[in-house]
Amino acid sequence: MRTNRRVVRIEWGDCDPAGIIFYPRYFALFDASTQILFERAGCGLRDMQKHYGIIGFPLVDARARFLLPCGYGEEVAIESAISEFRRSSFQVEHRLYKGDALAVEGFEVRVWVAPSLSKPGQMEARPIPAEVVNRFAESES
Amino acid sequence: MRTNRRVVRIEWGDCDPAGIIFYPRYFALFDASTQILFERAGCGLRDMQKHYGIIGFPLVDARARFLLPCGYGEEVAIESAISEFRRSSFQVEHRLYKGDALAVEGFEVRVWVAPSLSKPGQMEARPIPAEVVNRFAESES
Amino acid sequence: MRTNRRVVRIEWGDCDPAGIIFYPRYFALFDASTQILFERAGCGLRDMQKHYGIIGFPLVDARARFLLPCGYGEEVAIESAISEFRRSSFQVEHRLYKGDALAVEGFEVRVWVAPSLSKPGQMEARPIPAEVVNRFAESES
Amino acid sequence: MRTNRRVVRIEWGDCDPAGIIFYPRYFALFDASTQILFERAGCGLRDMQKHYGIIGFPLVDARARFLLPCGYGEEVAIESAISEFRRSSFQVEHRLYKGDALAVEGFEVRVWVAPSLSKPGQMEARPIPAEVVNRFAESES
Repeated sequence: MRTNRRVVRIEWGDCDPAGIIFYPRYFALFDASTQILFERAGCGLRDMQKHYGIIGFPLVDARARFLLPCGYGEEVAIESAISEFRRSSFQVEHRLYKGDALAVEGFEVRVWVAPSLSKPGQMEARPIPAEVVNRFAESES
Repeated sequence: MRTNRRVVRIEWGDCDPAGIIFYPRYFALFDASTQILFERAGCGLRDMQKHYGIIGFPLVDARARFLLPCGYGEEVAIESAISEFRRSSFQVEHRLYKGDALAVEGFEVRVWVAPSLSKPGQMEARPIPAEVVNRFAESES
Repeated sequence: MRTNRRVVRIEWGDCDPAGIIFYPRYFALFDASTQILFERAGCGLRDMQKHYGIIGFPLVDARARFLLPCGYGEEVAIESAISEFRRSSFQVEHRLYKGDALAVEGFEVRVWVAPSLSKPGQMEARPIPAEVVNRFAESES
Repeated sequence: MRTNRRVVRIEWGDCDPAGIIFYPRYFALFDASTQILFERAGCGLRDMQKHYGIIGFPLVDARARFLLPCGYGEEVAIESAISEFRRSSFQVEHRLYKGDALAVEGFEVRVWVAPSLSKPGQMEARPIPAEVVNRFAESES
Protein backbone atom coordinates (compact mmCIF):
# COMPACT_ATOMS: atom_id res chain seq x y z
CA MET A 1 0.00 0.00 0.00
CA ARG A 2 1.30 3.42 -0.94
CA THR A 3 2.52 5.37 2.08
CA ASN A 4 3.51 9.00 2.18
CA ARG A 5 6.07 10.28 4.68
CA ARG A 6 6.81 13.92 5.37
CA VAL A 7 8.73 15.80 8.03
CA VAL A 8 7.10 18.78 9.72
CA ARG A 9 8.55 21.31 12.14
CA ILE A 10 6.36 22.31 15.08
CA GLU A 11 6.13 26.09 15.14
CA TRP A 12 5.64 28.49 18.05
CA GLY A 13 2.16 29.35 16.79
CA ASP A 14 1.16 25.66 16.75
CA CYS A 15 1.70 25.46 20.52
CA ASP A 16 -0.47 26.45 23.47
CA PRO A 17 0.37 27.87 26.92
CA ALA A 18 1.39 24.37 28.06
CA GLY A 19 4.16 24.58 25.45
CA ILE A 20 2.81 21.66 23.41
CA ILE A 21 0.87 21.51 20.14
CA PHE A 22 -2.71 22.68 20.48
CA TYR A 23 -4.35 19.40 19.49
CA PRO A 24 -6.61 20.66 16.64
CA ARG A 25 -3.34 21.47 14.83
CA TYR A 26 -2.67 17.72 14.53
CA PHE A 27 -5.86 17.38 12.50
CA ALA A 28 -4.73 20.23 10.24
CA LEU A 29 -1.39 18.43 9.74
CA PHE A 30 -3.24 15.19 8.95
CA ASP A 31 -5.57 16.92 6.50
CA ALA A 32 -2.60 18.33 4.60
CA SER A 33 -0.93 14.91 4.71
CA THR A 34 -3.96 13.35 3.04
CA GLN A 35 -3.94 15.99 0.29
CA ILE A 36 -0.23 15.36 -0.34
CA LEU A 37 -0.73 11.58 -0.30
CA PHE A 38 -3.35 11.97 -3.06
CA GLU A 39 -1.19 14.32 -5.11
CA ARG A 40 1.79 11.98 -5.00
CA ALA A 41 -0.48 9.15 -6.17
CA GLY A 42 -1.45 11.29 -9.16
CA CYS A 43 -4.90 11.91 -7.68
CA GLY A 44 -4.68 15.54 -6.50
CA LEU A 45 -7.98 17.18 -5.58
CA ARG A 46 -8.01 19.62 -8.51
CA ASP A 47 -7.35 16.80 -11.00
CA MET A 48 -10.02 14.58 -9.47
CA GLN A 49 -12.53 17.43 -9.69
CA LYS A 50 -11.74 17.87 -13.39
CA HIS A 51 -11.61 14.19 -14.38
CA TYR A 52 -14.51 12.79 -12.36
CA GLY A 53 -16.70 15.82 -11.71
CA ILE A 54 -16.50 15.30 -7.96
CA ILE A 55 -16.67 18.05 -5.37
CA GLY A 56 -14.02 16.37 -3.23
CA PHE A 57 -13.64 13.84 -0.44
CA PRO A 58 -14.81 15.53 2.77
CA LEU A 59 -14.61 13.89 6.18
CA VAL A 60 -17.46 12.17 7.94
CA ASP A 61 -15.38 10.94 10.87
CA ALA A 62 -12.04 12.02 12.35
CA ARG A 63 -10.20 10.64 15.35
CA ALA A 64 -6.82 10.92 17.03
CA ARG A 65 -5.08 9.22 19.94
CA PHE A 66 -2.42 11.27 21.68
CA LEU A 67 0.39 9.17 23.14
CA LEU A 68 3.26 11.64 23.59
CA PRO A 69 3.24 15.45 23.62
CA CYS A 70 5.17 17.38 20.94
CA GLY A 71 6.61 20.80 21.63
CA TYR A 72 7.93 23.91 19.93
CA GLY A 73 10.83 23.44 17.54
CA GLU A 74 10.57 19.65 17.32
CA GLU A 75 10.65 17.94 13.96
CA VAL A 76 8.18 15.13 13.58
CA ALA A 77 7.54 12.64 10.78
CA ILE A 78 4.02 11.86 9.57
CA GLU A 79 3.33 8.61 7.70
CA SER A 80 -0.02 8.41 5.92
CA ALA A 81 -1.74 5.63 4.02
CA ILE A 82 -5.23 4.58 3.00
CA SER A 83 -6.05 1.64 5.25
CA GLU A 84 -9.34 0.68 3.62
CA PHE A 85 -11.37 1.43 0.51
CA ARG A 86 -15.11 0.84 0.66
CA ARG A 87 -17.55 1.50 -2.20
CA SER A 88 -17.76 5.29 -1.87
CA SER A 89 -15.66 5.99 1.20
CA PHE A 90 -12.16 5.27 2.48
CA GLN A 91 -10.18 5.44 5.70
CA VAL A 92 -6.82 7.20 6.01
CA GLU A 93 -4.43 6.38 8.84
CA HIS A 94 -1.73 8.77 9.99
CA ARG A 95 1.15 7.97 12.33
CA LEU A 96 3.15 10.87 13.74
CA TYR A 97 6.58 10.00 15.11
CA LYS A 98 9.07 11.79 17.37
CA GLY A 99 12.23 9.98 16.40
CA ASP A 100 11.26 6.31 16.63
CA ALA A 101 8.44 6.86 19.11
CA LEU A 102 4.82 6.92 17.95
CA ALA A 103 3.39 10.17 19.34
CA VAL A 104 -0.04 10.49 17.69
CA GLU A 105 -2.29 8.22 15.64
CA GLY A 106 -4.92 9.77 13.39
CA PHE A 107 -7.87 8.31 11.50
CA GLU A 108 -10.04 9.93 8.88
CA VAL A 109 -13.09 8.52 7.08
CA ARG A 110 -13.76 10.41 3.87
CA VAL A 111 -16.49 10.15 1.28
CA TRP A 112 -16.19 10.57 -2.49
CA VAL A 113 -18.90 13.13 -3.27
CA ALA A 114 -20.29 14.81 -6.38
CA PRO A 115 -23.18 17.20 -7.01
CA SER A 116 -26.48 15.38 -6.57
CA LEU A 117 -28.10 14.40 -9.88
CA SER A 118 -31.61 14.57 -8.43
CA LYS A 119 -31.40 17.35 -5.81
CA PRO A 120 -29.84 20.57 -7.18
CA GLY A 121 -27.50 22.30 -4.74
CA GLN A 122 -26.87 19.15 -2.73
CA MET A 123 -24.15 16.53 -2.93
CA GLU A 124 -24.21 12.75 -2.89
CA ALA A 125 -21.74 9.89 -2.45
CA ARG A 126 -20.39 8.20 -5.59
CA PRO A 127 -18.46 4.96 -6.12
CA ILE A 128 -14.72 5.55 -6.04
CA PRO A 129 -13.31 4.84 -9.56
CA ALA A 130 -11.29 1.62 -9.75
CA GLU A 131 -8.35 3.46 -11.33
CA VAL A 132 -8.14 5.70 -8.29
CA VAL A 133 -8.15 2.71 -5.95
CA ASN A 134 -5.45 1.07 -8.06
CA ARG A 135 -3.17 4.07 -7.72
CA PHE A 136 -2.95 3.47 -3.99
CA ALA A 137 -2.35 -0.26 -4.34
CA GLU A 138 0.87 0.46 -6.23
CA SER A 139 4.05 0.65 -4.23
CA GLU A 140 5.47 4.12 -3.90
CA SER A 141 7.42 5.23 -6.95
CA MET B 1 -25.72 16.17 34.50
CA ARG B 2 -24.52 19.73 34.07
CA THR B 3 -24.65 20.83 30.44
CA ASN B 4 -23.20 23.98 28.95
CA ARG B 5 -24.70 25.60 25.86
CA ARG B 6 -23.14 28.40 23.89
CA VAL B 7 -23.79 30.00 20.53
CA VAL B 8 -20.91 30.53 18.13
CA ARG B 9 -20.77 32.37 14.84
CA ILE B 10 -18.81 30.72 12.02
CA GLU B 11 -16.32 33.24 10.70
CA TRP B 12 -14.82 33.64 7.22
CA GLY B 13 -11.42 32.53 8.53
CA ASP B 14 -12.91 29.33 9.96
CA CYS B 15 -13.92 28.22 6.47
CA ASP B 16 -11.99 26.58 3.64
CA PRO B 17 -12.20 26.90 -0.15
CA ALA B 18 -15.28 24.65 -0.13
CA GLY B 19 -16.99 27.41 1.87
CA ILE B 20 -17.49 25.22 4.95
CA ILE B 21 -15.66 25.05 8.28
CA PHE B 22 -12.19 23.57 8.00
CA TYR B 23 -12.81 20.57 10.26
CA PRO B 24 -9.92 21.07 12.75
CA ARG B 25 -11.73 24.27 13.77
CA TYR B 26 -14.53 22.14 15.24
CA PHE B 27 -12.00 20.63 17.64
CA ALA B 28 -10.86 24.13 18.63
CA LEU B 29 -14.50 25.07 19.29
CA PHE B 30 -14.96 21.90 21.37
CA ASP B 31 -11.77 22.56 23.34
CA ALA B 32 -12.98 26.03 24.28
CA SER B 33 -16.41 24.59 25.12
CA THR B 34 -14.81 22.18 27.60
CA GLN B 35 -12.86 25.02 29.24
CA ILE B 36 -16.06 27.07 29.59
CA LEU B 37 -18.00 24.06 30.92
CA PHE B 38 -15.38 23.68 33.67
CA GLU B 39 -15.38 27.38 34.52
CA ARG B 40 -19.15 27.51 34.84
CA ALA B 41 -18.97 24.51 37.18
CA GLY B 42 -16.53 26.48 39.35
CA CYS B 43 -13.64 24.27 38.19
CA GLY B 44 -11.73 26.58 35.82
CA LEU B 45 -8.26 25.41 34.80
CA ARG B 46 -6.38 28.13 36.70
CA ASP B 47 -8.33 27.38 39.90
CA MET B 48 -7.79 23.63 39.56
CA GLN B 49 -4.05 24.20 39.11
CA LYS B 50 -3.96 26.27 42.31
CA HIS B 51 -6.20 24.08 44.48
CA TYR B 52 -5.04 20.61 43.44
CA GLY B 53 -1.55 21.19 42.06
CA ILE B 54 -2.50 19.66 38.73
CA ILE B 55 -0.99 20.61 35.38
CA GLY B 56 -4.34 20.31 33.64
CA PHE B 57 -6.55 17.78 31.86
CA PRO B 58 -4.99 17.15 28.43
CA LEU B 59 -6.56 14.95 25.80
CA VAL B 60 -5.62 11.37 25.12
CA ASP B 61 -8.36 10.76 22.54
CA ALA B 62 -10.49 13.08 20.37
CA ARG B 63 -13.12 12.19 17.83
CA ALA B 64 -15.79 13.89 15.77
CA ARG B 65 -18.55 12.76 13.43
CA PHE B 66 -19.58 15.24 10.76
CA LEU B 67 -23.25 14.97 9.79
CA LEU B 68 -24.03 18.33 8.16
CA PRO B 69 -21.67 21.00 6.83
CA CYS B 70 -21.63 24.47 8.42
CA GLY B 71 -20.73 27.56 6.43
CA TYR B 72 -19.65 31.16 6.76
CA GLY B 73 -21.89 33.44 8.80
CA GLU B 74 -24.00 30.66 10.33
CA GLU B 75 -24.71 30.66 14.04
CA VAL B 76 -24.47 27.27 15.67
CA ALA B 77 -25.15 26.08 19.21
CA ILE B 78 -22.74 23.79 21.04
CA GLU B 79 -23.97 21.70 23.98
CA SER B 80 -21.26 20.10 26.11
CA ALA B 81 -21.39 17.73 29.06
CA ILE B 82 -19.20 15.19 30.81
CA SER B 83 -20.65 11.84 29.81
CA GLU B 84 -18.49 9.68 32.07
CA PHE B 85 -16.06 10.05 34.95
CA ARG B 86 -13.52 7.28 35.49
CA ARG B 87 -10.86 7.23 38.24
CA SER B 88 -8.41 9.69 36.64
CA SER B 89 -10.00 10.40 33.28
CA PHE B 90 -13.30 11.60 31.91
CA GLN B 91 -15.16 11.83 28.61
CA VAL B 92 -16.72 15.05 27.30
CA GLU B 93 -19.43 14.96 24.63
CA HIS B 94 -20.21 17.92 22.42
CA ARG B 95 -23.23 18.31 20.16
CA LEU B 96 -23.20 21.11 17.62
CA TYR B 97 -26.56 22.14 16.21
CA LYS B 98 -27.69 24.13 13.18
CA GLY B 99 -31.15 25.15 14.33
CA ASP B 100 -32.66 21.87 15.49
CA ALA B 101 -30.44 19.65 13.35
CA LEU B 102 -27.45 17.88 14.86
CA ALA B 103 -24.50 18.82 12.62
CA VAL B 104 -21.42 17.52 14.47
CA GLU B 105 -20.81 15.24 17.43
CA GLY B 106 -17.52 15.48 19.30
CA PHE B 107 -15.91 13.30 21.93
CA GLU B 108 -12.89 14.01 24.08
CA VAL B 109 -11.17 11.76 26.62
CA ARG B 110 -9.09 13.81 29.04
CA VAL B 111 -6.79 12.83 31.88
CA TRP B 112 -6.34 14.61 35.22
CA VAL B 113 -2.54 15.01 35.41
CA ALA B 114 -0.04 16.43 37.90
CA PRO B 115 3.76 16.57 38.02
CA SER B 116 5.16 13.10 38.65
CA LEU B 117 6.22 12.55 42.26
CA SER B 118 8.88 10.01 41.30
CA LYS B 119 10.12 11.22 37.88
CA PRO B 120 11.04 14.93 37.86
CA GLY B 121 9.97 16.76 34.70
CA GLN B 122 7.31 14.21 33.82
CA MET B 123 3.61 14.09 34.56
CA GLU B 124 1.32 11.36 35.85
CA ALA B 125 -2.41 10.70 36.10
CA ARG B 126 -4.11 11.39 39.45
CA PRO B 127 -7.54 10.47 40.81
CA ILE B 128 -10.12 13.15 40.08
CA PRO B 129 -11.22 14.72 43.41
CA ALA B 130 -14.75 13.75 44.44
CA GLU B 131 -15.72 17.39 44.92
CA VAL B 132 -14.87 18.08 41.29
CA VAL B 133 -16.99 15.14 40.14
CA ASN B 134 -19.84 16.37 42.34
CA ARG B 135 -19.81 19.78 40.72
CA PHE B 136 -20.81 18.20 37.42
CA ALA B 137 -23.54 16.05 38.96
CA GLU B 138 -25.34 19.21 40.07
CA SER B 139 -27.94 20.62 37.76
CA GLU B 140 -26.93 23.85 36.10
CA SER B 141 -27.41 26.88 38.33
CA MET C 1 -19.36 57.33 12.03
CA ARG C 2 -20.85 53.92 12.65
CA THR C 3 -18.81 51.92 15.16
CA ASN C 4 -19.22 48.27 16.03
CA ARG C 5 -18.27 46.94 19.45
CA ARG C 6 -18.06 43.30 20.38
CA VAL C 7 -16.67 41.35 23.31
CA VAL C 8 -14.44 38.37 22.66
CA ARG C 9 -13.03 35.81 25.06
CA ILE C 10 -9.42 34.76 24.54
CA GLU C 11 -9.28 31.00 24.30
CA TRP C 12 -6.52 28.55 25.23
CA GLY C 13 -5.95 27.75 21.57
CA ASP C 14 -5.47 31.44 20.74
CA CYS C 15 -2.42 31.58 23.02
CA ASP C 16 1.18 30.57 22.53
CA PRO C 17 3.79 29.09 24.90
CA ALA C 18 4.35 32.57 26.40
CA GLY C 19 0.72 32.36 27.56
CA ILE C 20 -0.40 35.33 25.46
CA ILE C 21 -2.33 35.55 22.19
CA PHE C 22 -0.31 34.41 19.19
CA TYR C 23 -0.36 37.70 17.32
CA PRO C 24 -1.78 36.51 13.96
CA ARG C 25 -4.94 35.71 15.92
CA TYR C 26 -5.50 39.44 16.43
CA PHE C 27 -5.74 39.85 12.67
CA ALA C 28 -8.29 37.02 12.53
CA LEU C 29 -10.31 38.80 15.23
CA PHE C 30 -10.08 42.06 13.29
CA ASP C 31 -11.13 40.39 10.04
CA ALA C 32 -14.25 38.98 11.70
CA SER C 33 -14.91 42.38 13.29
CA THR C 34 -14.90 44.00 9.84
CA GLN C 35 -17.35 41.40 8.50
CA ILE C 36 -19.69 42.00 11.44
CA LEU C 37 -19.38 45.80 11.07
CA PHE C 38 -20.54 45.46 7.46
CA GLU C 39 -23.40 43.12 8.32
CA ARG C 40 -24.72 45.43 11.01
CA ALA C 41 -24.62 48.29 8.50
CA GLY C 42 -26.80 46.20 6.19
CA CYS C 43 -23.84 45.59 3.87
CA GLY C 44 -22.95 41.95 4.57
CA LEU C 45 -20.55 40.33 2.11
CA ARG C 46 -23.12 37.91 0.63
CA ASP C 47 -25.58 40.77 0.04
CA MET C 48 -22.93 42.99 -1.52
CA GLN C 49 -21.95 40.15 -3.86
CA LYS C 50 -25.57 39.77 -4.95
CA HIS C 51 -26.48 43.45 -5.27
CA TYR C 52 -23.29 44.84 -6.80
CA GLY C 53 -21.69 41.82 -8.44
CA ILE C 54 -18.50 42.31 -6.46
CA ILE C 55 -16.17 39.54 -5.41
CA GLY C 56 -15.56 41.15 -2.04
CA PHE C 57 -13.28 43.63 -0.32
CA PRO C 58 -9.92 41.92 0.18
CA LEU C 59 -7.02 43.50 2.01
CA VAL C 60 -4.10 45.22 0.39
CA ASP C 61 -2.52 46.39 3.66
CA ALA C 62 -2.84 45.25 7.28
CA ARG C 63 -1.09 46.56 10.34
CA ALA C 64 -1.26 46.23 14.11
CA ARG C 65 0.47 47.86 17.06
CA PHE C 66 0.70 45.77 20.20
CA LEU C 67 0.63 47.82 23.39
CA LEU C 68 -0.37 45.34 26.10
CA PRO C 69 -0.37 41.53 26.02
CA CYS C 70 -3.66 39.62 26.39
CA GLY C 71 -3.78 36.16 27.92
CA TYR C 72 -5.94 33.06 28.23
CA GLY C 73 -9.43 33.55 29.62
CA GLU C 74 -9.45 37.33 29.34
CA GLU C 75 -12.43 39.11 27.82
CA VAL C 76 -11.54 41.95 25.51
CA ALA C 77 -13.66 44.48 23.64
CA ILE C 78 -13.03 45.30 19.99
CA GLU C 79 -14.29 48.58 18.53
CA SER C 80 -14.24 48.85 14.75
CA ALA C 81 -15.06 51.66 12.37
CA ILE C 82 -14.26 52.77 8.83
CA SER C 83 -11.87 55.68 9.25
CA GLU C 84 -11.71 56.67 5.60
CA PHE C 85 -13.47 56.00 2.31
CA ARG C 86 -11.51 56.62 -0.90
CA ARG C 87 -12.85 56.02 -4.41
CA SER C 88 -12.48 52.24 -4.50
CA SER C 89 -10.81 51.48 -1.19
CA PHE C 90 -11.37 52.14 2.49
CA GLN C 91 -9.53 51.92 5.78
CA VAL C 92 -10.87 50.12 8.86
CA GLU C 93 -9.54 50.86 12.32
CA HIS C 94 -9.86 48.45 15.21
CA ARG C 95 -9.19 49.19 18.87
CA LEU C 96 -8.95 46.25 21.25
CA TYR C 97 -9.39 47.06 24.95
CA LYS C 98 -8.61 45.23 28.19
CA GLY C 99 -10.99 47.02 30.51
CA ASP C 100 -10.27 50.69 29.82
CA ALA C 101 -6.74 50.13 28.54
CA LEU C 102 -6.03 50.13 24.81
CA ALA C 103 -4.15 46.87 24.17
CA VAL C 104 -3.95 46.60 20.37
CA GLU C 105 -4.64 48.90 17.45
CA GLY C 106 -5.35 47.41 14.03
CA PHE C 107 -5.58 48.93 10.57
CA GLU C 108 -6.83 47.36 7.37
CA VAL C 109 -6.93 48.84 3.87
CA ARG C 110 -9.43 46.99 1.72
CA VAL C 111 -10.38 47.30 -1.93
CA TRP C 112 -13.84 46.96 -3.49
CA VAL C 113 -13.24 44.42 -6.28
CA ALA C 114 -15.29 42.81 -9.01
CA PRO C 115 -14.46 40.43 -11.88
CA SER C 116 -12.47 42.26 -14.54
CA LEU C 117 -14.57 43.30 -17.53
CA SER C 118 -11.62 43.14 -19.92
CA LYS C 119 -9.46 40.30 -18.50
CA PRO C 120 -11.45 37.10 -17.83
CA GLY C 121 -10.44 35.31 -14.61
CA GLN C 122 -8.94 38.44 -13.08
CA MET C 123 -10.39 41.06 -10.77
CA GLU C 124 -10.33 44.84 -10.75
CA ALA C 125 -11.11 47.67 -8.34
CA ARG C 126 -14.50 49.38 -8.64
CA PRO C 127 -15.87 52.61 -7.16
CA ILE C 128 -17.62 52.01 -3.84
CA PRO C 129 -21.36 52.74 -4.29
CA ALA C 130 -22.48 55.95 -2.56
CA GLU C 131 -25.29 54.13 -0.78
CA VAL C 132 -22.75 51.82 0.84
CA VAL C 133 -20.68 54.78 2.00
CA ASN C 134 -23.81 56.43 3.37
CA ARG C 135 -24.64 53.41 5.48
CA PHE C 136 -21.47 53.96 7.48
CA ALA C 137 -22.05 57.68 7.92
CA GLU C 138 -25.27 56.93 9.80
CA SER C 139 -25.08 56.69 13.54
CA GLU C 140 -25.51 53.17 14.85
CA SER C 141 -29.14 52.08 15.05
CA MET D 1 23.15 40.86 5.89
CA ARG D 2 22.12 37.33 6.69
CA THR D 3 19.00 36.29 4.80
CA ASN D 4 16.97 33.15 5.32
CA ARG D 5 14.98 31.60 2.49
CA ARG D 6 12.47 28.82 2.86
CA VAL D 7 9.83 27.27 0.64
CA VAL D 8 6.34 26.75 2.01
CA ARG D 9 3.36 24.96 0.49
CA ILE D 10 -0.04 26.62 0.88
CA GLU D 11 -2.41 24.11 2.38
CA TRP D 12 -6.19 23.76 2.02
CA GLY D 13 -6.68 24.78 5.64
CA ASP D 14 -4.67 27.99 5.08
CA CYS D 15 -7.24 29.17 2.53
CA ASP D 16 -10.63 30.84 2.88
CA PRO D 17 -13.86 30.57 0.87
CA ALA D 18 -12.34 32.85 -1.79
CA GLY D 19 -9.78 30.07 -2.36
CA ILE D 20 -6.82 32.22 -1.28
CA ILE D 21 -4.78 32.35 1.92
CA PHE D 22 -6.69 33.80 4.86
CA TYR D 23 -4.39 36.76 5.46
CA PRO D 24 -3.59 36.19 9.18
CA ARG D 25 -1.86 33.01 8.03
CA TYR D 26 0.79 35.13 6.33
CA PHE D 27 1.71 36.58 9.71
CA ALA D 28 1.98 33.06 11.14
CA LEU D 29 4.31 32.15 8.26
CA PHE D 30 6.38 35.27 8.90
CA ASP D 31 6.57 34.57 12.63
CA ALA D 32 7.93 31.08 11.96
CA SER D 33 10.34 32.55 9.39
CA THR D 34 11.77 34.89 12.03
CA GLN D 35 12.24 32.02 14.48
CA ILE D 36 14.07 29.99 11.82
CA LEU D 37 16.19 33.00 10.82
CA PHE D 38 17.35 33.31 14.44
CA GLU D 39 18.04 29.60 14.79
CA ARG D 40 20.14 29.49 11.65
CA ALA D 41 22.13 32.46 12.98
CA GLY D 42 22.86 30.45 16.12
CA CYS D 43 20.45 32.63 18.11
CA GLY D 44 17.44 30.34 18.62
CA LEU D 45 14.89 31.50 21.18
CA ARG D 46 15.60 28.74 23.71
CA ASP D 47 19.35 29.47 23.55
CA MET D 48 18.84 33.20 23.92
CA GLN D 49 16.64 32.62 26.96
CA LYS D 50 19.37 30.50 28.56
CA HIS D 51 22.37 32.68 27.68
CA TYR D 52 20.92 36.15 28.23
CA GLY D 53 18.05 35.55 30.62
CA ILE D 54 15.59 37.14 28.22
CA ILE D 55 11.94 36.23 27.91
CA GLY D 56 12.01 36.59 24.15
CA PHE D 57 11.55 39.15 21.39
CA PRO D 58 7.81 39.82 21.13
CA LEU D 59 6.27 42.08 18.51
CA VAL D 60 5.24 45.65 19.05
CA ASP D 61 4.32 46.32 15.42
CA ALA D 62 3.43 44.06 12.48
CA ARG D 63 2.48 45.00 8.97
CA ALA D 64 1.94 43.36 5.61
CA ARG D 65 1.23 44.56 2.08
CA PHE D 66 -0.62 42.13 -0.15
CA LEU D 67 0.28 42.44 -3.82
CA LEU D 68 -0.80 39.12 -5.33
CA PRO D 69 -3.13 36.46 -3.95
CA CYS D 70 -1.78 32.95 -3.24
CA GLY D 71 -3.99 29.89 -3.44
CA TYR D 72 -4.25 26.28 -2.39
CA GLY D 73 -1.41 23.98 -3.41
CA GLU D 74 0.97 26.76 -4.47
CA GLU D 75 4.57 26.72 -3.31
CA VAL D 76 5.91 30.08 -2.25
CA ALA D 77 9.36 31.22 -1.13
CA ILE D 78 9.82 33.45 1.91
CA GLU D 79 13.00 35.51 2.28
CA SER D 80 13.59 37.05 5.70
CA ALA D 81 16.26 39.37 7.04
CA ILE D 82 16.76 41.87 9.83
CA SER D 83 16.61 45.25 8.14
CA GLU D 84 17.56 47.34 11.16
CA PHE D 85 18.94 46.94 14.67
CA ARG D 86 18.20 49.68 17.20
CA ARG D 87 19.31 49.66 20.83
CA SER D 88 16.72 47.22 22.18
CA SER D 89 14.53 46.56 19.17
CA PHE D 90 14.91 45.40 15.58
CA GLN D 91 12.92 45.23 12.38
CA VAL D 92 12.50 42.05 10.32
CA GLU D 93 11.47 42.20 6.66
CA HIS D 94 9.88 39.29 4.87
CA ARG D 95 9.33 38.95 1.13
CA LEU D 96 7.06 36.20 -0.11
CA TYR D 97 7.44 35.21 -3.76
CA LYS D 98 5.30 33.27 -6.23
CA GLY D 99 7.97 32.28 -8.70
CA ASP D 100 9.76 35.57 -9.43
CA ALA D 101 6.82 37.78 -8.49
CA LEU D 102 6.72 39.51 -5.11
CA ALA D 103 3.33 38.56 -3.62
CA VAL D 104 3.49 39.80 -0.02
CA GLU D 105 5.80 42.04 1.98
CA GLY D 106 5.87 41.73 5.77
CA PHE D 107 7.41 43.87 8.48
CA GLU D 108 7.83 43.10 12.15
CA VAL D 109 9.24 45.30 14.91
CA ARG D 110 10.34 43.20 17.87
CA VAL D 111 11.73 44.12 21.26
CA TRP D 112 14.41 42.28 23.24
CA VAL D 113 12.75 41.82 26.65
CA ALA D 114 13.72 40.37 30.01
CA PRO D 115 11.99 40.20 33.41
CA SER D 116 11.89 43.65 34.98
CA LEU D 117 14.56 44.14 37.66
CA SER D 118 12.46 46.66 39.55
CA LYS D 119 8.85 45.49 38.98
CA PRO D 120 8.35 41.77 39.72
CA GLY D 121 6.07 39.99 37.25
CA GLN D 122 6.62 42.58 34.52
CA MET D 123 9.05 42.73 31.65
CA GLU D 124 11.30 45.46 30.29
CA ALA D 125 13.34 46.14 27.15
CA ARG D 126 17.08 45.40 27.27
CA PRO D 127 19.95 46.33 24.94
CA ILE D 128 20.51 43.68 22.29
CA PRO D 129 23.94 42.08 22.92
CA ALA D 130 26.57 43.06 20.33
CA GLU D 131 27.42 39.42 19.66
CA VAL D 132 23.82 38.78 18.64
CA VAL D 133 23.87 41.76 16.28
CA ASN D 134 27.15 40.52 14.82
CA ARG D 135 25.69 37.13 14.01
CA PHE D 136 23.31 38.76 11.57
CA ALA D 137 25.98 40.89 9.95
CA GLU D 138 27.78 37.72 8.87
CA SER D 139 27.05 36.37 5.43
CA GLU D 140 25.03 33.17 5.43
CA SER D 141 27.10 30.06 6.05
